[in-house]
Amino acid sequence: MSADPLVAVLAEVVGPAHVLTDPDLTASYESDWTGRWAGRARCVVRPADTAQVTGVVRACATHAAPVVPQGGNTGLVGGSVPRGGEVLLSLARLDRVEPVDTLAGQVTAGAGVTLAALQRHAAQAGLSYGVDLAARDRATVGGMVATNAGGTHVVAYGTTRAQVVGLEAVLADGSVVSRLEGLPKDNVGYDLPGLLVGSEGTLAVVTRARLRLVPQLPHRVAALLAVPGLAAAVALVARLRSRVGGLQAVEYVERAGIELAVDQLGVADAFSSPHAAHLLVEVADHGDPTPLLADALDGADEVAEVAVADDGPGRTRLWRVREAQTEAIALAGVARKYDVTLPLSRLAAFRGDLDGVLAREAPGARAIVFGHLAEGNLHVNVLDADHLDDRLDAVVLGLVASHAGSISAEHGVGRHKAAYVHLGRDAADRAAMAAIKRALDPEGRLNPGVLFPAAR
Amino acid sequence: MSADPLVAVLAEVVGPAHVLTDPDLTASYESDWTGRWAGRARCVVRPADTAQVTGVVRACATHAAPVVPQGGNTGLVGGSVPRGGEVLLSLARLDRVEPVDTLAGQVTAGAGVTLAALQRHAAQAGLSYGVDLAARDRATVGGMVATNAGGTHVVAYGTTRAQVVGLEAVLADGSVVSRLEGLPKDNVGYDLPGLLVGSEGTLAVVTRARLRLVPQLPHRVAALLAVPGLAAAVALVARLRSRVGGLQAVEYVERAGIELAVDQLGVADAFSSPHAAHLLVEVADHGDPTPLLADALDGADEVAEVAVADDGPGRTRLWRVREAQTEAIALAGVARKYDVTLPLSRLAAFRGDLDGVLAREAPGARAIVFGHLAEGNLHVNVLDADHLDDRLDAVVLGLVASHAGSISAEHGVGRHKAAYVHLGRDAADRAAMAAIKRALDPEGRLNPGVLFPAAR
Repeated sequence: MSADPLVAVLAEVVGPAHVLTDPDLTASYESDWTGRWAGRARCVVRPADTAQVTGVVRACATHAAPVVPQGGNTGLVGGSVPRGGEVLLSLARLDRVEPVDTLAGQVTAGAGVTLAALQRHAAQAGLSYGVDLAARDRATVGGMVATNAGGTHVVAYGTTRAQVVGLEAVLADGSVVSRLEGLPKDNVGYDLPGLLVGSEGTLAVVTRARLRLVPQLPHRVAALLAVPGLAAAVALVARLRSRVGGLQAVEYVERAGIELAVDQLGVADAFSSPHAAHLLVEVADHGDPTPLLADALDGADEVAEVAVADDGPGRTRLWRVREAQTEAIALAGVARKYDVTLPLSRLAAFRGDLDGVLAREAPGARAIVFGHLAEGNLHVNVLDADHLDDRLDAVVLGLVASHAGSISAEHGVGRHKAAYVHLGRDAADRAAMAAIKRALDPEGRLNPGVLFPAAR
Repeated sequence: MSADPLVAVLAEVVGPAHVLTDPDLTASYESDWTGRWAGRARCVVRPADTAQVTGVVRACATHAAPVVPQGGNTGLVGGSVPRGGEVLLSLARLDRVEPVDTLAGQVTAGAGVTLAALQRHAAQAGLSYGVDLAARDRATVGGMVATNAGGTHVVAYGTTRAQVVGLEAVLADGSVVSRLEGLPKDNVGYDLPGLLVGSEGTLAVVTRARLRLVPQLPHRVAALLAVPGLAAAVALVARLRSRVGGLQAVEYVERAGIELAVDQLGVADAFSSPHAAHLLVEVADHGDPTPLLADALDGADEVAEVAVADDGPGRTRLWRVREAQTEAIALAGVARKYDVTLPLSRLAAFRGDLDGVLAREAPGARAIVFGHLAEGNLHVNVLDADHLDDRLDAVVLGLVASHAGSISAEHGVGRHKAAYVHLGRDAADRAAMAAIKRALDPEGRLNPGVLFPAAR
């Protein structure tokens, strides 16, 4: 038994079996899968429901103990692992999903429900959840809310913020804010749920979410388009958006990433001749979208080759190169990863400058760039850089800012980019955010070091 | 010349011609069109741009002067007129709309741009703005942002919050927060724009908005459906949402409102036989939506009669009864107005209880109920109530709350419902909102009495 008096109090709240201090048991909570972010927790506490979360947060308040909330621990930016000494509050046991409200097209899910479980639950009721991402088997509702998770369907349904009709959350003082009625129009004061979405655990601990579901769409077509580069791809996006309804995904990969997938994983290039870039477009609708898609592509001179698939296996084949990017990069070496958004009008210029910057700052490095093109969201992976140090972060993120882009599209700021927030938010903006942080967490005990650089 | 030293300072900021103190000139700013809300302003100040707004807000801070921001003054809840003695800050001159960014499908518009001007500007670029409402010729971007305006197209595009990609706003201390880059994915700290949307001028003065535009849809069909009542209408909404893409509007009117439009304005009922209620559905898409709509209605036993129109004049005819509701009610007398949202599952029960409550509390009163049914948003108008007093407010809003509804769907809280916020937000929630208010406006000088009941 631990001599820590807080551990004893927490054991009373959640039961002794759910307060972990043995390093063998706590280890998996204390580092993320990048291996870059790790720290020892004072203890890991696993409450079962909102009342227990309240008890945990109150006890931590009494003991002036900082708290790091954690969902599926699939983040990449050090947003949900301890620096050292914090109470690690795992929401994994809040895994209850309520029956689907088919009339409203909504469901209430606990913070610990995985995305895959939520998707299955929605499908059983004949509906879909509007967000999908590769970490679906481990990523949780609470974590996706806290980071405003994006993924491949943002072009159709928006980010997680657009799915959240309401939230229940425990504030730093242990009080509970609950807006779970599922009212799509409810203008009674400030949008606290919207404020908590993307706040990365620094303002409150999300315990439940009321989520919008979307109709299942019976017709689904994927088209892989060979294009000469990023500028052509951007022009195609504008053309498609103005002429095709039901765009579900608009994904971009480049020659270097295609070859990496071929080399590392044996994935086949869908085209027999090599092209500078591929744009993968998926369209789904209540009716067959093929004629509209064909019309929209008719006369699109920037498209050199097209492959279309309207059945599941065919779509999977067209997606394979795009889906393989992350794994192929991991197999090729340790990559420096950036997740950025550029205005569509600046995307091609940024991409050109990026090559120049890397040639100068990291000679011999390779940039593997892919992403969600409708939102201008690029995942920039730098392989074989001799100097994988913080200077590269500053140079790449500075380049993004110089093109009016965002240094954090969908992965969040976490601890990784806390020192770079000034690149996207000016002094007045940061002061307003800090004032809100102080208002809701005056002692700064929720996820210290995340979003705001830590004093130590 | 006024002896008020603040007036002299403001005249230096915006020019003497734009500080009004003559009652003949200030009158139109000092009461709203309901006539219920009115008060004298210390002065009316009309800055021309963000820099002048900053100067005005700073001067007011120096003089500890409360400020009421005002857009088109089309509100119904006393949210943009003085109580007495405040500086009335009109944003009407911030009416510049920038060129449409067709690549991103976005536009940046000043707070004083009217909805009609915004719509025309978007149309000239081959795009549309996703929000429409009856006050379009006077309602402004700033006011629509401040109240999170809804209207008839929420089912398709969401409320104003879903259109706002970014904002520029002046905080109570005169500092300027600016996020106008138009990045759809930008997770760098808290969503300040989202927080300001719907904050009713109590946290900041919105000066510019970066707004999402949507494609123009070439095919548009309206269908008027005769239904036996609200429960049947709600069931139809769920059926349509699951089977038809491109729902643009789902509007509900009842027999009493249909007859009021016929009696007061000579509008023709679209059906020869009387029905308990009409559901007006508008669908638009890139392709012809008629077959999907027909399929969805096939076997919908709750529909007694259908009228369909796919040309402009025909659609206008089907919309006429719905569009005439507000004017017909105004001609019939002074109505007590409520703008509420109910969960779809509670809507029919609420409607039944409302008749019971009115029979008991206001014998002889008539309820004219219409609204945006896909969101469960009803506009409840009570005519011929003998006692048009605050008791009726408490009873009706209390009934809404007892059915887990919202007392303010799209009109906002303003001063009208500031005393009823507890019906929709519990103590912890109100405390969190008050903490945010204090964080951004510590002296409580922005729109005092709105959202939070005034001390006096």
